[in-house]
Amino acid sequence: MRKNLKVVVIGGGSSYTPEIIEGFILNFDSFPVREIVLVDIPEGQEKLNIVGNLAKRMIEKSGLPITIELTLNRREALVGADFVTTQMRVGLLKARIWDETIPLKYGIIGQETTGPGGMMKAFRTIPVLLDICRDIEELCPDAWLLNFTNPAGMVTEAILKHSNVKSIGLCNSPIAAYKWLSELYQTPARDIYCEFVGLNHLHWITQVRINGEEKLEELLANREGYSAKNVPQFDWNANFIASLGAIPSYYLKYFYLTKELLEEQQLSLDKEGTRAEVVKRLEDELFELYKDLNLTEKPKQLEKRGGAYYSEAAVNAMKSIYNDTRDIQTLNVRNQGVLDFLPADASIEVNCVVTNQGPIPLPVSNVPTAAKGLIHAVKTYEQLAIEAAVTGDHGIALQALANHPLVHSVNVAEAMLDEMLLKNKDYLPLFFK
Amino acid sequence: MRKNLKVVVIGGGSSYTPEIIEGFILNFDSFPVREIVLVDIPEGQEKLNIVGNLAKRMIEKSGLPITIELTLNRREALVGADFVTTQMRVGLLKARIWDETIPLKYGIIGQETTGPGGMMKAFRTIPVLLDICRDIEELCPDAWLLNFTNPAGMVTEAILKHSNVKSIGLCNSPIAAYKWLSELYQTPARDIYCEFVGLNHLHWITQVRINGEEKLEELLANREGYSAKNVPQFDWNANFIASLGAIPSYYLKYFYLTKELLEEQQLSLDKEGTRAEVVKRLEDELFELYKDLNLTEKPKQLEKRGGAYYSEAAVNAMKSIYNDTRDIQTLNVRNQGVLDFLPADASIEVNCVVTNQGPIPLPVSNVPTAAKGLIHAVKTYEQLAIEAAVTGDHGIALQALANHPLVHSVNVAEAMLDEMLLKNKDYLPLFFK
Amino acid sequence: MRKNLKVVVIGGGSSYTPEIIEGFILNFDSFPVREIVLVDIPEGQEKLNIVGNLAKRMIEKSGLPITIELTLNRREALVGADFVTTQMRVGLLKARIWDETIPLKYGIIGQETTGPGGMMKAFRTIPVLLDICRDIEELCPDAWLLNFTNPAGMVTEAILKHSNVKSIGLCNSPIAAYKWLSELYQTPARDIYCEFVGLNHLHWITQVRINGEEKLEELLANREGYSAKNVPQFDWNANFIASLGAIPSYYLKYFYLTKELLEEQQLSLDKEGTRAEVVKRLEDELFELYKDLNLTEKPKQLEKRGGAYYSEAAVNAMKSIYNDTRDIQTLNVRNQGVLDFLPADASIEVNCVVTNQGPIPLPVSNVPTAAKGLIHAVKTYEQLAIEAAVTGDHGIALQALANHPLVHSVNVAEAMLDEMLLKNKDYLPLFFK
Amino acid sequence: MRKNLKVVVIGGGSSYTPEIIEGFILNFDSFPVREIVLVDIPEGQEKLNIVGNLAKRMIEKSGLPITIELTLNRREALVGADFVTTQMRVGLLKARIWDETIPLKYGIIGQETTGPGGMMKAFRTIPVLLDICRDIEELCPDAWLLNFTNPAGMVTEAILKHSNVKSIGLCNSPIAAYKWLSELYQTPARDIYCEFVGLNHLHWITQVRINGEEKLEELLANREGYSAKNVPQFDWNANFIASLGAIPSYYLKYFYLTKELLEEQQLSLDKEGTRAEVVKRLEDELFELYKDLNLTEKPKQLEKRGGAYYSEAAVNAMKSIYNDTRDIQTLNVRNQGVLDFLPADASIEVNCVVTNQGPIPLPVSNVPTAAKGLIHAVKTYEQLAIEAAVTGDHGIALQALANHPLVHSVNVAEAMLDEMLLKNKDYLPLFFK
Repeated sequence: MRKNLKVVVIGGGSSYTPEIIEGFILNFDSFPVREIVLVDIPEGQEKLNIVGNLAKRMIEKSGLPITIELTLNRREALVGADFVTTQMRVGLLKARIWDETIPLKYGIIGQETTGPGGMMKAFRTIPVLLDICRDIEELCPDAWLLNFTNPAGMVTEAILKHSNVKSIGLCNSPIAAYKWLSELYQTPARDIYCEFVGLNHLHWITQVRINGEEKLEELLANREGYSAKNVPQFDWNANFIASLGAIPSYYLKYFYLTKELLEEQQLSLDKEGTRAEVVKRLEDELFELYKDLNLTEKPKQLEKRGGAYYSEAAVNAMKSIYNDTRDIQTLNVRNQGVLDFLPADASIEVNCVVTNQGPIPLPVSNVPTAAKGLIHAVKTYEQLAIEAAVTGDHGIALQALANHPLVHSVNVAEAMLDEMLLKNKDYLPLFFK
Repeated sequence: MRKNLKVVVIGGGSSYTPEIIEGFILNFDSFPVREIVLVDIPEGQEKLNIVGNLAKRMIEKSGLPITIELTLNRREALVGADFVTTQMRVGLLKARIWDETIPLKYGIIGQETTGPGGMMKAFRTIPVLLDICRDIEELCPDAWLLNFTNPAGMVTEAILKHSNVKSIGLCNSPIAAYKWLSELYQTPARDIYCEFVGLNHLHWITQVRINGEEKLEELLANREGYSAKNVPQFDWNANFIASLGAIPSYYLKYFYLTKELLEEQQLSLDKEGTRAEVVKRLEDELFELYKDLNLTEKPKQLEKRGGAYYSEAAVNAMKSIYNDTRDIQTLNVRNQGVLDFLPADASIEVNCVVTNQGPIPLPVSNVPTAAKGLIHAVKTYEQLAIEAAVTGDHGIALQALANHPLVHSVNVAEAMLDEMLLKNKDYLPLFFK
Repeated sequence: MRKNLKVVVIGGGSSYTPEIIEGFILNFDSFPVREIVLVDIPEGQEKLNIVGNLAKRMIEKSGLPITIELTLNRREALVGADFVTTQMRVGLLKARIWDETIPLKYGIIGQETTGPGGMMKAFRTIPVLLDICRDIEELCPDAWLLNFTNPAGMVTEAILKHSNVKSIGLCNSPIAAYKWLSELYQTPARDIYCEFVGLNHLHWITQVRINGEEKLEELLANREGYSAKNVPQFDWNANFIASLGAIPSYYLKYFYLTKELLEEQQLSLDKEGTRAEVVKRLEDELFELYKDLNLTEKPKQLEKRGGAYYSEAAVNAMKSIYNDTRDIQTLNVRNQGVLDFLPADASIEVNCVVTNQGPIPLPVSNVPTAAKGLIHAVKTYEQLAIEAAVTGDHGIALQALANHPLVHSVNVAEAMLDEMLLKNKDYLPLFFK
Repeated sequence: MRKNLKVVVIGGGSSYTPEIIEGFILNFDSFPVREIVLVDIPEGQEKLNIVGNLAKRMIEKSGLPITIELTLNRREALVGADFVTTQMRVGLLKARIWDETIPLKYGIIGQETTGPGGMMKAFRTIPVLLDICRDIEELCPDAWLLNFTNPAGMVTEAILKHSNVKSIGLCNSPIAAYKWLSELYQTPARDIYCEFVGLNHLHWITQVRINGEEKLEELLANREGYSAKNVPQFDWNANFIASLGAIPSYYLKYFYLTKELLEEQQLSLDKEGTRAEVVKRLEDELFELYKDLNLTEKPKQLEKRGGAYYSEAAVNAMKSIYNDTRDIQTLNVRNQGVLDFLPADASIEVNCVVTNQGPIPLPVSNVPTAAKGLIHAVKTYEQLAIEAAVTGDHGIALQALANHPLVHSVNVAEAMLDEMLLKNKDYLPLFFK
């Protein structure tokens, strides 16, 4: 690998960009990026300029020999890249509003990664990512693609199935779990070991070792849970958690507490609009801050945005690949038999040893019996949804939705699907050939 | 195997008994039963006498050298048995009413084999069946146990896991499918071949060959479905069935049309009471008929009872074992790798070659992608429910229920579970130790 | 399937032809062949005429409405075929002499199906069979190809991997086992059930039931073995057989008694020449008999030829496919997970239910631990040899040979391979491109 | 884990002991051993005293706060141990002479770990190791047992199957491969990555990356091999290695060059006696050196002994467990699905991440087709031999030997087995009950 690294950030106009720039600055010694290219589409030009200029000021302040470029020309940007990250949102927040509101009309959870909303996001996003992959295959075939565009598990599976690009899917929630435990036990994260089992946004923690001592039982008994800004906080049922024998991801509340979250979503919609609208307001505020020419660092307010640690995850993965660190990170990769009841080519979220040849998934020591059915049910939906996304096949899309555990009627699925497809028509050329 | 066969019918006082007696009479040439023992419990003595006497009249009319005996002493009955069948209902129709009504109060399907009702039936039934197995192991270890007590898949799995008895689980719905196709295509059943994939009350037909010609696509396109008396008749969604690529069992409506069936159940409960109550009235009428000393054959009315073909299934299996017929029947047996995503010791419903060593499951040529998640989700529930049934562990019971695809909240699951357990207390000694 | 069946016999000039003709005559009621075409190559014209005329006399004598045609035009012959059988020998007996003698020079078993000789036969035969498959795909794509050209397991695997033809590999040794047991127990074959585990010419019988009673232990204790004309008769070691817990195929002597058979082969070569030469003399005698215009039936002498029951196997398979008999036959088919340690696309020899869609392999109830290593070692060789046969890759051929359990030195393997390839040059265009 | 570590060395009187002592001294900072106990049996008392006193002088010279104790009381020694290592030789070099000479009389490789000799060593060793495990289970159940008693793969499998002790099997040959590559490429071992596939003394290197660059092809093309003192040095066949696509362990010469090594063994036996006798002379010389009271370090001559790097392997593993280093080491552990064609409970030699919970095996990226058969054949032998070792069953021992790839006749196997068993009678109480 070259000494002077080039990283291309697709969706560079995102409000998250200051975070990844900060990551590159802080890690320069072990991960010497010399060239950063922020790419966006014409509709994003204004935001790209604002955030790109902040990035430039951050680099300048650091005094490091890093060049930074803003461009709308993706193909030019990719030439010679060592790493590519993606953080774009096809359809922007407008489409997210549809994802969050249409399902609610049908009595179903409306969420941007889980359920019908996540499926529409996958339909909009996967073809665009595969286009990027075509470019990578041609222009920088040895580059690693670090994807943190949601639904990250499905997007990663689509890339691994339908391209030759070396790709990893990233999520901030495993890091968030380590941060939570680190604070709880007043122990540095490097002395903590968690085993994650499952899929992206559908994982269980089945081992927690603090300085080599197993603490899972203690955690389960104490009713502790962990949280994130973007999921409503219902308490978990203590008897349920104790008999489950694992710490469920907060996204699992959509499945285990469907009824409660549905009611909460409907209340919240009436009170403060969708999460998309909340985020829109946050983003507007952030961009106002970014415009300030005196600002030369990542503003604190960005952490409220919900995506904390995303760029930490990305920089960690890049750094370990570059340095052949062989440390353990929790990533979205090809299953390859780790979960023996899923296809070998399914994406899973799993502890991996990260080498300069990429991540090697570690076998899991134990999959809770109770988790297997739900993992397989959601993966079935994901496989069908990916197939629908790349073919535009209406029947397969219907199967995907009808087989989603949150959907309770084939007929409802069909009506909802048709409304959502129509609304998203501009972003779904394959479905409207 | 001996020439003079002895068959023991446990739950011999059931209204179904005339059907199995008719089966023995019609098949006497190839399956020479010489001794039938109808066993029941003290509470069933009256019904045993009524139906037992009808059985005696049927045998007498046939002129065959078959003896028939009525008894309350199960252990004596089992000595020297070649085949044992079970058709009892622990808790009688009273408990079935609970199974069908309590879930509805929580907004969940109330049904005697599927969902929370089926789980309670499993809790009541499995320990009793395992007691019978202990007796068989001791008194007639070479006997085959043909179980058609519901939930037949779970009961069979419990027997195969927790006893050494040679056992097969039986259901009438595969035979019903053949009857339906036979009529539809005006072709004898022996010239029809269906491939069944899935679990008991959760199967898909993935191949239909009439005289060697594949007719599945034609059937799917023509929107044909098949039906049984005991499931409300909603039309399947045509687009859904076409894209599914398989004919779903009518029990699958509980999963694919949950919302619609739930509404229907609530309406029907208001109008005519539970299915249990309807059955109760049917049974009372049947026993009135059975008392008629002039009745010497199975009355036509029995067919309305819903369990048509059950005894045909049982006699077919016994006959093939006895004669080493090596024909193909659809039975509930140990998975052994046929569905490679389920544990080897799970019970599945699958085409088997029936030999004198018992059924050998045939590999399936194709499992629809869309079916895998649901099969695994339901099997996960079943495994947990079986474990709860044999241990009386409340936490595992909660996991079973909370992971059932029809249940949408862990908290609801807990409340419902506690109400159901309490109601069934008399039949659940393991849970109330 | 049509009422008037057409069967094409490739290698129709073989001395075995009278046997298959007899089979068609004896089974006409259940398998109504109306058209038989015997195909051969120009070099085989004379033998085709002799044996073809005998076949015509046999048909005439039977009085059945079967037409028979002799031709050198394979493509014309295949048009409209329902079944195709192959019984040709590429390189004729001359090449077999090389197969049997060259290995002996290197201190290795010389045999036409097992070891280096079998590999050369596979190299000569597989490309020709794949050519035939190309024709079948084009001219009669619905036809079944029943292959009994040796090495039948490898040839079948090559066809299943490299063509779309529906094909089954046949061997006479399972039928021979039934005949042996039938005589031993004075019981008709239909009341006997054997479970076969392994590969073609490398199987173990792991269950023997006579009228439903397990007799394996009795057979193992009594030191009984079974035999065939073409394998020298050493007694099995009684302790070995008892601890093995299965009856090995007689071909397994090449592996279990390598030293003894090698010595025997060398002695026998000195005394009476190769088996090929013995066969050559037998064949010459047979063709003399066949020329006799008064001969109108299969002569008794054919049975000495070693291939007894081959055509019985072929007719049984065809009859069951045609009639959807669903009986159990031991055939060479795609593994599909039956032996879980071998690739899914490996050919294995296994009990199958034969339906009108072809054979469905039955799961095996038990694979002796001691057999697994040898099965996998031989299958490894077979996979490599098949790959070499279709590519002509010298390195892969060397790997195949060096990894054969009968070969004890990579260097010896290389020298022997080079000599054999050169000798067979005319039949190995792929290796001498 | 405690700060003051206690390590028990069983077979402490071995000539290797100075090496492991040196390892503890050099690694004291990261692996703070405070208490070392050298245990031996009465027959070994003299050697224990000699080598134990040298060990004491070495510690004294180091100035480290380590205590060292010599004892014949194994049970007392084990109390409170953190790590236990075993390096004893049941039957001493006398039995090794039998292992190396008796097979040669039957025309079969005589070697102490591979073939019949290795089986006898396993028979002598496994019951003794399992006795030690019984003590560990009782006296120090949390201790890790690091086994480098050969045949290490089989002994490890026996321990993992028949005890609850946490155990790892160690071999020096993976480290030797790194040393060789390190010298060849003038690159520190930490910048080299090899993927090992197979079993103990039966592995292939399928990836070699120097500073992240794949060098396997280059190595294969250059005919390089690697070597060890205790295996005769025949050149590998270049065409064979190139088409194999992996670097075979030097022990694989016993399988790939059987004929050549057999001849070499016979020559060498005539010339210089068995390897055991050579080792005996070396050992005698070493012990003479050890007696020198001025010697306070490991003498250079020990490296000729053949076991170089063994203690490096052991100390590396202990250090990584103690520090939760999570680095990659090549160890003998339970398969758990890594090689999908072997049983889950087989031991394999594989790259592992070593954590404070022990090693986690990494999935292998590629198993050469040509290697699978041999791996499975040898594992079949190993499974049977382990079963024979723990039961003393003569029939299973015969199966093990008859199925070993180096044995070419069941009859020869039986005669050889009987001679070897009788010779080893004193060490095989289970076989002579």
